[in-house]
Amino acid sequence: MNDRLRNLQQFLIEHQFECGLITSKHNIFYLSNFDYEPHERFIGIFVFQNRKSLMVVPAMEVAMVKEAGWENEIISYTDTDNVWDIVRDTVNQIQTLAVEKQEISYFYIEKLRELQPSLRLSSLDEKLNNMRLVKSDDELEKLQAAAEYADLAVEFGIKSLKEGISEIEVMAEIEFLLKKKGIREMSFPPVVLFGENASNPHGVPGKRLLQKGDVVLFDLGVKYMGYSSDITRTVVYDHANEEFVNIYNTVLEANLVGIDACKPDIRMGDIDLAARTVIVNAGYGDHFPHRIGHGLGLDVHETPSLTLNNNGVLKTGMVLTVEPGIYINGVMGVRIEDDVVITESGSRVLTKFPKTLQVVSPGETLW
Amino acid sequence: MNDRLRNLQQFLIEHQFECGLITSKHNIFYLSNFDYEPHERFIGIFVFQNRKSLMVVPAMEVAMVKEAGWENEIISYTDTDNVWDIVRDTVNQIQTLAVEKQEISYFYIEKLRELQPSLRLSSLDEKLNNMRLVKSDDELEKLQAAAEYADLAVEFGIKSLKEGISEIEVMAEIEFLLKKKGIREMSFPPVVLFGENASNPHGVPGKRLLQKGDVVLFDLGVKYMGYSSDITRTVVYDHANEEFVNIYNTVLEANLVGIDACKPDIRMGDIDLAARTVIVNAGYGDHFPHRIGHGLGLDVHETPSLTLNNNGVLKTGMVLTVEPGIYINGVMGVRIEDDVVITESGSRVLTKFPKTLQVVSPGETLW
Repeated sequence: MNDRLRNLQQFLIEHQFECGLITSKHNIFYLSNFDYEPHERFIGIFVFQNRKSLMVVPAMEVAMVKEAGWENEIISYTDTDNVWDIVRDTVNQIQTLAVEKQEISYFYIEKLRELQPSLRLSSLDEKLNNMRLVKSDDELEKLQAAAEYADLAVEFGIKSLKEGISEIEVMAEIEFLLKKKGIREMSFPPVVLFGENASNPHGVPGKRLLQKGDVVLFDLGVKYMGYSSDITRTVVYDHANEEFVNIYNTVLEANLVGIDACKPDIRMGDIDLAARTVIVNAGYGDHFPHRIGHGLGLDVHETPSLTLNNNGVLKTGMVLTVEPGIYINGVMGVRIEDDVVITESGSRVLTKFPKTLQVVSPGETLW
Repeated sequence: MNDRLRNLQQFLIEHQFECGLITSKHNIFYLSNFDYEPHERFIGIFVFQNRKSLMVVPAMEVAMVKEAGWENEIISYTDTDNVWDIVRDTVNQIQTLAVEKQEISYFYIEKLRELQPSLRLSSLDEKLNNMRLVKSDDELEKLQAAAEYADLAVEFGIKSLKEGISEIEVMAEIEFLLKKKGIREMSFPPVVLFGENASNPHGVPGKRLLQKGDVVLFDLGVKYMGYSSDITRTVVYDHANEEFVNIYNTVLEANLVGIDACKPDIRMGDIDLAARTVIVNAGYGDHFPHRIGHGLGLDVHETPSLTLNNNGVLKTGMVLTVEPGIYINGVMGVRIEDDVVITESGSRVLTKFPKTLQVVSPGETLW
């Protein structure tokens, strides 16, 4: 049994929960090293106080579960089995069960309660979030590597810019070159937005063609051995107008001030406050409609959520994004996002792609 | 209010549910045309018996919700708001709520019950599944287009084969060429597996290099205007041995027999039975560990699930995959998958890439 499972087992003993059930993709990977997208098929790890953990998994995945290193019990089922019959004897014996309330479906809860009507449920969410919150050296190495590939992805993206290329084509170039480097998976579909499309914080790349004077916003991340990066850079093509320069410098200052505020024992909301103050003072307060950032790890969005009103406190080993933005509806948007690890002496930035304002010239490569 | 919302409203009236709450990505898109990956932020459509529908959505998405064509009410919240405060007045007034039990998290149910302790819950799953089960002509056109791009993707993949290329590199070529055609999104990360890697039904592409005599399995799909395709083709590189030819012909016959069994009013399990019988008779029954197929639409896996023991009945307008496979552990795997629409007179196959056994010769393009 690995240290993480043992840690969970200790938690169950301390809180007198007989059993914990883990059903989410990321936490199953975290506990078993088995990377699996369950779709509609049930998968779960049952952790007990005083017996070996048990994974319930579709029969055709058993070989991959073992290959991932799982040495505990496995119960498998086929497509014609009813998985609730398969777990009946296990669930029958449990009175107190801790589940991932934020992840497990209500349907699964109803099924478990049919098997054991007196089941008392409690939450594993906070425990698992806390286990994942402070990263180990091994996890930090993977996050650093993921960040380096994200830097490279932005470089690929900028190098592909030319008049008349579409947002999706730039996305294609980025993913192609990364896959050629052996990167199979992005943290999320890469975002490449030109001009007015960048004014939407969650815009989606389309067939918009690059024109001179366009803002170009890249927001992307790479999965490296399960761990995510998340970077945003904004450049301008051919020439920049005064408004862009003003907004860019404001966002950059907010990014730097936000990162500077990242230290152990600092209130989380103060990171947002520090960056937001820069933007408010520059007169763009109404144009920064989202939090300053979020935790980063196996999931590209995980705890903590760096909102203005978060009274939690930063700790050494947490990894966060710092991503201020200013969006002028229908005109342009600028966001600059870095991945930051909290260190004993302050912080270290994992993403290193340059942040000085870049005017990308047609026909010119930057390096 | 669109027809789909009206249909749901009618369902609420008939079943005397005051309200329906839709929270899943695919059903939100189905009802509103708003395509959104919510991550940790709550999004929901409340449908009522006798008032306009209401979407609760993060403030920064409001512009995109309207752009998608949503003309009903919107309530938005920022990252510093507590969304449960925002929906309190709405939920307070509801006694009977139908939810997507298979999709909504237990955490959300608990939050809703905190707002309204006497809330009685029922399920919307079956209703929404049934609405999506039989496709309209408009939906069939999109599924046909998605299938044509999937055919093209297999063609791109086969053309990229050469000795020493890696699985991930082939994946890179396929996605690059599709994006160049304007396809932004795949149904799922494309699967390209060489040789013994193909013996895993859910194998993941890696750095395995192509060698002469390798089986090459492609399993991929494309998203077109929200709708998914899902195709599998297996070829062999340079030369085929007798075992491969034997297995290939068995799987192909199972695929054809399975498709042939697809007709209105046929028991769903009989599709699996028809194809499985071919494989069992050839002596490979223990090497076909999964169901014959699944429904296809907005989601790449949706109802129905074509398992041997499914006693449901096929109806005109359903779209299904038919995907028999034989897997020889550590040696090879063959799967042939098509997307099939049930028609009044039988069925029509949407995926058209040739299925005759193809030995891909080094240095030769097939077309």
